[in-house]
Amino acid sequence: QADSVTIYGRLNVDVESVKASGGSGAGVTSTARLTSNSSLIGFRGEEDLGGGMKALFQLENSVGLDTGSGTFVGRNSGVGIGGAYGTLIMGQWDTPYKASTTRLDPFGDTTIAGYGAVLYGDASNTAANAANRNSFDRRQRNVIQYWTPNVAGFSGRLAYGVNEEKGTCAVACDPKLWSLSAAYEQGPLFLGAAVEQHDEYANTATARTQDTGFKLAGSYTFGATTVSALAERLRFSGNLAATGLPKVFTVGAATEAKLDTFWLAAVHRIGAHNLRLALGKSRELKLNLGSAPGTDARYVALGYGYTFSKRTEAYAMFTKISNGGNSRNDFAVNGIGGVTNGASPQGLAVGMIHSF
Amino acid sequence: QADSVTIYGRLNVDVESVKASGGSGAGVTSTARLTSNSSLIGFRGEEDLGGGMKALFQLENSVGLDTGSGTFVGRNSGVGIGGAYGTLIMGQWDTPYKASTTRLDPFGDTTIAGYGAVLYGDASNTAANAANRNSFDRRQRNVIQYWTPNVAGFSGRLAYGVNEEKGTCAVACDPKLWSLSAAYEQGPLFLGAAVEQHDEYANTATARTQDTGFKLAGSYTFGATTVSALAERLRFSGNLAATGLPKVFTVGAATEAKLDTFWLAAVHRIGAHNLRLALGKSRELKLNLGSAPGTDARYVALGYGYTFSKRTEAYAMFTKISNGGNSRNDFAVNGIGGVTNGASPQGLAVGMIHSF
Amino acid sequence: QADSVTIYGRLNVDVESVKASGGSGAGVTSTARLTSNSSLIGFRGEEDLGGGMKALFQLENSVGLDTGSGTFVGRNSGVGIGGAYGTLIMGQWDTPYKASTTRLDPFGDTTIAGYGAVLYGDASNTAANAANRNSFDRRQRNVIQYWTPNVAGFSGRLAYGVNEEKGTCAVACDPKLWSLSAAYEQGPLFLGAAVEQHDEYANTATARTQDTGFKLAGSYTFGATTVSALAERLRFSGNLAATGLPKVFTVGAATEAKLDTFWLAAVHRIGAHNLRLALGKSRELKLNLGSAPGTDARYVALGYGYTFSKRTEAYAMFTKISNGGNSRNDFAVNGIGGVTNGASPQGLAVGMIHSF
Repeated sequence: QADSVTIYGRLNVDVESVKASGGSGAGVTSTARLTSNSSLIGFRGEEDLGGGMKALFQLENSVGLDTGSGTFVGRNSGVGIGGAYGTLIMGQWDTPYKASTTRLDPFGDTTIAGYGAVLYGDASNTAANAANRNSFDRRQRNVIQYWTPNVAGFSGRLAYGVNEEKGTCAVACDPKLWSLSAAYEQGPLFLGAAVEQHDEYANTATARTQDTGFKLAGSYTFGATTVSALAERLRFSGNLAATGLPKVFTVGAATEAKLDTFWLAAVHRIGAHNLRLALGKSRELKLNLGSAPGTDARYVALGYGYTFSKRTEAYAMFTKISNGGNSRNDFAVNGIGGVTNGASPQGLAVGMIHSF
Repeated sequence: QADSVTIYGRLNVDVESVKASGGSGAGVTSTARLTSNSSLIGFRGEEDLGGGMKALFQLENSVGLDTGSGTFVGRNSGVGIGGAYGTLIMGQWDTPYKASTTRLDPFGDTTIAGYGAVLYGDASNTAANAANRNSFDRRQRNVIQYWTPNVAGFSGRLAYGVNEEKGTCAVACDPKLWSLSAAYEQGPLFLGAAVEQHDEYANTATARTQDTGFKLAGSYTFGATTVSALAERLRFSGNLAATGLPKVFTVGAATEAKLDTFWLAAVHRIGAHNLRLALGKSRELKLNLGSAPGTDARYVALGYGYTFSKRTEAYAMFTKISNGGNSRNDFAVNGIGGVTNGASPQGLAVGMIHSF
Repeated sequence: QADSVTIYGRLNVDVESVKASGGSGAGVTSTARLTSNSSLIGFRGEEDLGGGMKALFQLENSVGLDTGSGTFVGRNSGVGIGGAYGTLIMGQWDTPYKASTTRLDPFGDTTIAGYGAVLYGDASNTAANAANRNSFDRRQRNVIQYWTPNVAGFSGRLAYGVNEEKGTCAVACDPKLWSLSAAYEQGPLFLGAAVEQHDEYANTATARTQDTGFKLAGSYTFGATTVSALAERLRFSGNLAATGLPKVFTVGAATEAKLDTFWLAAVHRIGAHNLRLALGKSRELKLNLGSAPGTDARYVALGYGYTFSKRTEAYAMFTKISNGGNSRNDFAVNGIGGVTNGASPQGLAVGMIHSF
């Protein structure tokens, strides 16, 4: 039966120089690092059940190539049934909200230049319901997903995070996740929309929390150039003082906050070479009480890649985040750490990525 | 040499509703769960050494599909030599006592409906000598096993748990395990017997402990129906007050206790469908001093399976344990937790199992 | 793409009787153990990039066959590019210093009889810069290595341990590692030299530390017999009082210490049988202030192997370390633990090794 199992992987390692200057603290001095960027190895397979149906599974493991570590079965893993009416899968898996736009990021949401510098709130690769309400970048535990087939370019995904933690809060609660995405793809055009809700993740005796993400995205390829755009609104409601908001300080007596972010990217290919650009901006928070000055952030990333083959690329990149005076965004993947309000994390990297 | 390695696995995930009502405590309210039931992936291989001999190995890893976790090399793993006179293997492996009857359980000893609800004392997948004297469901560390060849339907297994912990007790001790099983299989008939001894697992200055399990089991297949039966006696001797007994409260001044359990099961197949039933009863403990009222427990499990193929099945099942007033058995695999004396854990589940 | 991934491994398990008699303490009484000796399973692959170039990767996992444990990606793991000018690899990997002579040890640097009983300071399979200055047996994290091609029998390796921990010391520091090896191999002859430096691993406000290892080694095969020899000098400089020296007590006010070790081995093959011998001696430490009496140690190892095939061997071995009165060397791999000054650890083992 071994012939039914495929081993696959993606190894991405670079040498980086990172620092965070300015801001309210002492900053982080320039540091050299060897970094593994969401490297992985996985096992997957399918069984033809006849009548257009199949059983399928995936077990994906995270690989810390730099420190010789890994988490067995720590990434997208599940078992399910697929057929003409779509696929039902159970396990731990990226939510539709997260998965819907990863393809647009020229830096793959895996490096210091990834779009999480401004998007999706806190980075949280793996989380249960009732854990990290602020992250809309979830690889969700205890999740059931349904993926539609592709019909004339349209497709969608729906996920439910099973409410295992019901009643485990300090007060009555029923923490659960809903995540939904829809996409249309036709030739050079891609359009996508997604919504995700974290319900009762951080209730108190007097407050019920509900946090929601919305995003709209699109990309278009003109010959050798692909441009992409994304707009996101995150809304946090209830108990903000205790749990804080993503990447910024808490917001006093406000009980509702909105965080709007815009992001643009372009990739241009010249033979084996490619150039990449990404720009992003988070606006200041909108509160239901008071203002939130200086909670904005901007980000830029530049990259160059040389493709040895479809499976192997060498790359260089530069990225910089410019935080407002009350914001402290860090790289979402392999952050510097210790970034203080108003500081500007930046990084230069040279590395390679190899898939198998 | 890669062709000598086979990747295999078994993924079993279900959605469950479990609760524990009644009993001395508040009970556990109905809870929804996504559960991974002893899912695994493994690597194994053989090398032909000529003359009927072979080298063989297995590295089996546990997979927590629901929470994106796993234990690398956490299950049956070892290396050994096999030939006409049998197989010698060293590593971590299920004891002969445990392995001898797993095949009889229609619920595979892997789900909330598994026969461990009443059988084999505490569940303890992985343990060293001197750890968890109460479990006769051991995947034993530091074990050497000898497996006979099959001779005219007869076969046997012998295991020794190396006494690595000798002298590490509070007092002089020499903790070791012996486990032995014998089986006869001919056509529709299977007969099995097993015995296991945990020697000096919990000595005190004045008491030497010795815990023993015995079981007799059989199954017979009539056409599309298979019936199975199992009788087990566990005997615990010495230092009972300190370490307690499996699943029940401690027993005062008694220094010896016996726990008798009976179990029956039937599986009936109709084309791609199958129906499963299991019933079990643990009698009240027999003590050498005093009585143990209310330490009995009963269990029932009902299941339905639809086999898509030999490798893939969808299933539904219901199970309920009825504890005596001084007993608090829980599901052996993925227990509810927090079960109090006299409570009745029960669960309903719908899921799938896929092997590769 | 699965055909590009090779699964390989080495499983080495034995049953041992070990003890440590004599010395300043009570000693360790004779203990039986089942032991897994640096067992492993790995995944590796190459991609032909054309023009003589290739991408390559390896993910190697440690396997604790005795206790059913393992470290995913815990061993030599990396990704890189190779070609006519050599190979560049990034990840976690044995330093050139360590890797250069492993081949000479008839006991493979993996068992109680391995040459680490006297050589290479502390055993430290996996370490970051600024961790365990005393170990010259490093599988180094955050490392970049360059391996030359083999040119007329000459080859070399260079490694740099990226200074990620810069500035993380109590005082200003810049911990980094350099490791270099060169080898010449022609027919029956092997010659090797290696040097490794641990720079600023344990600085204090007044002391900068620098620790260096040098070794020269060679082997020659006469027909069925191979003889090997190795001489090593380890030099430790600065802050000795706080961090101690490998395997021995601290050395008072001295600020520099040298540890010289000599080692010899022979392997003789008779058909499927082989006999192995290793002898080693560490001299007393040479301090820049005062003397270090009794800090010497001697070691002997005897072995017999029966090869079933190129991939499978059964073996027996005996080893004994004779420590000076102020030395407490233990087996470098699977040490007994609790060895006190002047004690003599010894062990007898019977086991098997199987590669795939």
